[in-house]
Amino acid sequence: MRQAAQTLEIATPRPGLHEITREVAAWIADQGFSTGLLTLFCRHTSASLLIQENADPDVARDLEDWAATIAPESAGYRHQDEGPDDMPAHLRAALTGVQLSIPLTGGRLALGTWQGIYLFEHRARPHRREVAMHLIGE
Amino acid sequence: MRQAAQTLEIATPRPGLHEITREVAAWIADQGFSTGLLTLFCRHTSASLLIQENADPDVARDLEDWAATIAPESAGYRHQDEGPDDMPAHLRAALTGVQLSIPLTGGRLALGTWQGIYLFEHRARPHRREVAMHLIGE
Amino acid sequence: MRQAAQTLEIATPRPGLHEITREVAAWIADQGFSTGLLTLFCRHTSASLLIQENADPDVARDLEDWAATIAPESAGYRHQDEGPDDMPAHLRAALTGVQLSIPLTGGRLALGTWQGIYLFEHRARPHRREVAMHLIGE
Repeated sequence: MRQAAQTLEIATPRPGLHEITREVAAWIADQGFSTGLLTLFCRHTSASLLIQENADPDVARDLEDWAATIAPESAGYRHQDEGPDDMPAHLRAALTGVQLSIPLTGGRLALGTWQGIYLFEHRARPHRREVAMHLIGE
Repeated sequence: MRQAAQTLEIATPRPGLHEITREVAAWIADQGFSTGLLTLFCRHTSASLLIQENADPDVARDLEDWAATIAPESAGYRHQDEGPDDMPAHLRAALTGVQLSIPLTGGRLALGTWQGIYLFEHRARPHRREVAMHLIGE
Repeated sequence: MRQAAQTLEIATPRPGLHEITREVAAWIADQGFSTGLLTLFCRHTSASLLIQENADPDVARDLEDWAATIAPESAGYRHQDEGPDDMPAHLRAALTGVQLSIPLTGGRLALGTWQGIYLFEHRARPHRREVAMHLIGE
């Protein structure tokens, strides 16, 4: 039994969903584990992680619109330090969460056929985001 | 230290919450672990996993109604490939999440007295769903 | 490779966010792990766990207001056994989730600069809450 850990850096030139499945799978493959548990942890409070369908790009756009409706920009928030997209970003991160754990079996992530791993950028301006990756198993 | 992994198949004849606590606990008991970490991962983007109260069935019904209000069927979604319940299903899965990790101590899951593990089916038609189970510990 | 497990008890004199980062980090430090995975599991269905910004207290207040808007008290719920704050508490727990896993590297949690760990109390009256903590690694 052993562990591996690495930080994944992701550039987000625009808000919305950014698929990171390929980057995560590439790191997993390099570690040479057969069975284990992968944990991804987004080190921010204005970006989040989620699993979504990666077949039709319209799903991502509908999801972004929905998040904007559920946690709108103009709702009279107290916290506006970094502009009108500041507090909604925190709310949308709370909504979808910053952590995912995915089992690894047969050397592959147990993702379903249509599942992709996404970083959800909630701020309007471009950012660089860090996702801590941790793998335990053998 | 060792690992165990298995796929749990769940038939969902109707939308809504389906309790799977018993099936999960039965698998755990068979593995003979004393201390460890259980991870459940739903391999779909239109069904999800959550912990809820398992004492009063009204809680499940109120929760289903709430999800239908938060992510309604008629909201002019772009993605409608599989009908009006397609995109709301993705949104409700994003809302509640597809993954749960639960510590195991003294050979039992650390669930609270009133906590049950549920698969939340978001599609109108019957489905068969897969939940990847992973256990690590000793 | 080894494990550690403990239950953290938290008094919640009022509803809303209660930061528990210090208590969790203190327990981690006592275990003497260098690399590993921490899992926190809230053993209740009317309180939840989430990561949020711990710099400006206004973030917590805006988040509490938002949760009250998303899952309001007066929505004609079936389940009202313990009063008008009963069912909204379950909904807000489903919204934010009861479980968090955070990698540990270099002997420290991989939290970002502004990230704090919070217990979110959803009931109006004071409670004592239990969070199961599990650590695996070396």
